[in-house]
Amino acid sequence: MKYSAKILDIADRGVLLNASDARMVGVLEGDRVQIMNHASGLSTPAVVDITTTMIPVGVIGIYGLTNRTLLLVDGTEVEVWEAKKPLALDLIKKKMNHEKLTKDDTRQIIQDIVNDSLSQAELSAYVTACYINGLDMDEVEYLTHAMVESGDRLKFSNHPIVDKHSVGGVPGNKISLLIVPIIAASGLKIPKTSSRAITGAAGTADLMEVLAPVEFSAVEVQQMTEKVGGVIVWGGATNIAPADDKIIVVEYPFKIDARGQMLASVMAKKFAVGADLVVIDIPVGSSTKVPDMAEGRKMAREFIELGERLGIRVECALTYGDSPVGRTIGPNLEVREALAILEGGDEPRSLIQKSLSLAGIALEMSGKAAKGQGYQMAEEILRSGKALRKLRQIIEIQGGDPAVTSESIKPGEFEFVVNAQNTGYIIELNNRALVSLARIAGAPHDHGAGLLLHAKKGEQVNAGDPIFTIYADRDWRLKMAVEEGRRLMPVIVEGMLLDRIPSEYRGQV
Amino acid sequence: MKYSAKILDIADRGVLLNASDARMVGVLEGDRVQIMNHASGLSTPAVVDITTTMIPVGVIGIYGLTNRTLLLVDGTEVEVWEAKKPLALDLIKKKMNHEKLTKDDTRQIIQDIVNDSLSQAELSAYVTACYINGLDMDEVEYLTHAMVESGDRLKFSNHPIVDKHSVGGVPGNKISLLIVPIIAASGLKIPKTSSRAITGAAGTADLMEVLAPVEFSAVEVQQMTEKVGGVIVWGGATNIAPADDKIIVVEYPFKIDARGQMLASVMAKKFAVGADLVVIDIPVGSSTKVPDMAEGRKMAREFIELGERLGIRVECALTYGDSPVGRTIGPNLEVREALAILEGGDEPRSLIQKSLSLAGIALEMSGKAAKGQGYQMAEEILRSGKALRKLRQIIEIQGGDPAVTSESIKPGEFEFVVNAQNTGYIIELNNRALVSLARIAGAPHDHGAGLLLHAKKGEQVNAGDPIFTIYADRDWRLKMAVEEGRRLMPVIVEGMLLDRIPSEYRGQV
Repeated sequence: MKYSAKILDIADRGVLLNASDARMVGVLEGDRVQIMNHASGLSTPAVVDITTTMIPVGVIGIYGLTNRTLLLVDGTEVEVWEAKKPLALDLIKKKMNHEKLTKDDTRQIIQDIVNDSLSQAELSAYVTACYINGLDMDEVEYLTHAMVESGDRLKFSNHPIVDKHSVGGVPGNKISLLIVPIIAASGLKIPKTSSRAITGAAGTADLMEVLAPVEFSAVEVQQMTEKVGGVIVWGGATNIAPADDKIIVVEYPFKIDARGQMLASVMAKKFAVGADLVVIDIPVGSSTKVPDMAEGRKMAREFIELGERLGIRVECALTYGDSPVGRTIGPNLEVREALAILEGGDEPRSLIQKSLSLAGIALEMSGKAAKGQGYQMAEEILRSGKALRKLRQIIEIQGGDPAVTSESIKPGEFEFVVNAQNTGYIIELNNRALVSLARIAGAPHDHGAGLLLHAKKGEQVNAGDPIFTIYADRDWRLKMAVEEGRRLMPVIVEGMLLDRIPSEYRGQV
Repeated sequence: MKYSAKILDIADRGVLLNASDARMVGVLEGDRVQIMNHASGLSTPAVVDITTTMIPVGVIGIYGLTNRTLLLVDGTEVEVWEAKKPLALDLIKKKMNHEKLTKDDTRQIIQDIVNDSLSQAELSAYVTACYINGLDMDEVEYLTHAMVESGDRLKFSNHPIVDKHSVGGVPGNKISLLIVPIIAASGLKIPKTSSRAITGAAGTADLMEVLAPVEFSAVEVQQMTEKVGGVIVWGGATNIAPADDKIIVVEYPFKIDARGQMLASVMAKKFAVGADLVVIDIPVGSSTKVPDMAEGRKMAREFIELGERLGIRVECALTYGDSPVGRTIGPNLEVREALAILEGGDEPRSLIQKSLSLAGIALEMSGKAAKGQGYQMAEEILRSGKALRKLRQIIEIQGGDPAVTSESIKPGEFEFVVNAQNTGYIIELNNRALVSLARIAGAPHDHGAGLLLHAKKGEQVNAGDPIFTIYADRDWRLKMAVEEGRRLMPVIVEGMLLDRIPSEYRGQV
């Protein structure tokens, strides 16, 4: 049946039908219709909401995200009919029933995800089934290929192409801001797509956005990389492995860490940008995704095996993940810290060492540096100012201001300093609590929000010394963070207590 | 922060915020806010949609189903803040990780489901995890109690209370229309809550709705049952075990048959209406939920064990489920067939025998009939006209016309007769295909839509004889059903072919 489209500015997928029309089409709330724009040939399925007043009979309301596929304007005539059940449903049921998914099964599921043929509930069932029943390495390989095929790809004429990935879970991990310009300055190409924070305080894309726009198409990513050797963009805007972004949304509430899906997601993005050499940073620590070295080595082997199946050389670095990287958490603070190093600063050492180590591995893998000489070469590129110049080129080509300096980037105007209550050693920096605090202060949306750590694990502080400062762009956000900070106690200072316990014990004898 | 409410007539859960307000509250599309109406004290969480034009700054759009909890009018001032993560999420994750859920865990999950604190994706993860990892009998018992506690309950002063349930999967199963009045006419009480069809052509509630309203509160169900001995209502309107209706919605796309959840769902409804004696009809057949007798006996044992844990006496009947019950599928056709039997008709025998057998079991369990005499007593109640008079009382108390007769109920005005192409025996009636056809013709929404079977399995037909008639309320629905009927071939007639094969074989020797 034919309907007149009315575009509704609701940032969701779906359509709104008058109850009487829904009955005519034969659908209930939550059922799916297929919508066809005959003029353009564009067509998509969409889940139905029902109204009796907001949309008159003969009109179909189209939500914003659904119209991204249909490209309708008010009044366009569309055809609407009850949609067929997506083929993926039977295949997801198969996975629920402990069966292995074939290459074709996987491709169908990913296609239905990318086409928005699945509801959030259906997608969640898929993700849950894969999490519980697991994916073997064949299934992971199929999933990687299916994700690559579902989106855009880069095709460089000159190789090798380098890429890096950090498995995540450690706050303040702004190393890409150092590694990408070092690699690009060495003459290699590194088209870095990165993520925004979902549960974290700042993803690499959130950081880069402080310096320049980060939303580009795959073609633009390729062109910019050809010109200046590297970019740092938000992967979500590129249409590279787009299924992954949809999967992450349903994983988010449960913090699901489905190993197979994670491997496929990371490597699909590397494969799609044409990477030949990939360095994977695996932070190991109690609050990261990898609690111990044994688990880290296992994950490294899986990345390497998947890389072999895809024709990508992978090296992994197990890194220290028990404390934040550097002394800052939150967009502006982290960018300022990274820029200061590129400008010649030699603090914090842990951040510099981690960045140079990972960059060095990539330089050795590519043959730019001899075995064992990668770190030193990376350090020379950093110290010579070449990395800073390269980052400025990258900022400029992405549309930012290349004259930016660390001095020009300010944290939020509202701040609160947390002081040590007693003299002692910092015995714990709780990553999760620190991230939570930075988020409550407004990160990553408020660029100025975040934390500056004045003391790190193992350092001694005296009573009254500042331990960390909370920054926020908005007053009420700061207040909330300060309140929450009292409850969370993200930093624990102990000293005298360690002495007192045996004293008391002796007292009782 | 304070917002002015604007009620949006969208039959969904959720709220619509201006992008600028969403940023102020600190939520993204798909996050949850808590909305509080200080005047009434009513509060609920809701998932956020975002707009830049449909809702101005300072206003929050409230979708219809969310406003069922808040009871706001346009302009009511509400407070809105970022909602806390529902406690159920960690417990669902626990079930994903193969752990057993405790009584408290289960209660929390069900509470969050009933309060709409979980998104569809989160609910789906719970259902999928329970399906894949299964529930043991302890967990099923906890789930049953949690479902009961989540909703309203009936408290009768006189006992015993009888109830029945059919596990489903067999079309045309209109037996409740006969069993309920027989039981009530015997002097026992049977407050029957029933379901609408989700994947079927007509649930018992869809059938009863042809005769009378079916939407009542739990209190009304109790009062009507006290007065006339029985009712047939739609369970979805009663707020009895309300979590179940929400769970079914996410099971539907996958036709998930999670045993533990099914057991809990059925028995929670029985427990909540105060049933002492329950008869369970388990249709066995290749297209039902129970493919063979061994599986049927296993399910029966599970129902009985769960009943013992709940203090409910349960008896199960394994019934023939390979063909439809009776000769009709679809609301009006089925009601007409059942009424004709109550009016004195003696056809179809299979429907009469099944109804009397199950009613007889209940009569024996209650002590109304001696052991072995239940069937006969049920038959006397039916033949004496007492059951018809009782059904008319039930129709009247529910607000329908008690003078209704089978003659007055008409199938749809558009019909198409499918004739046998060749002479032979009906060797197959495909339940799934028959149901699919009835649904395409418009059942259960269009009450006149459905199928009348002129010949059943094992019967002989001659070429040109009618096999079945398709009825529809709307012309285009009939056309679609006729087309689909050609493809589905729900009835297979074979005869000559069986002779021809050996002849050909002999010819080759």
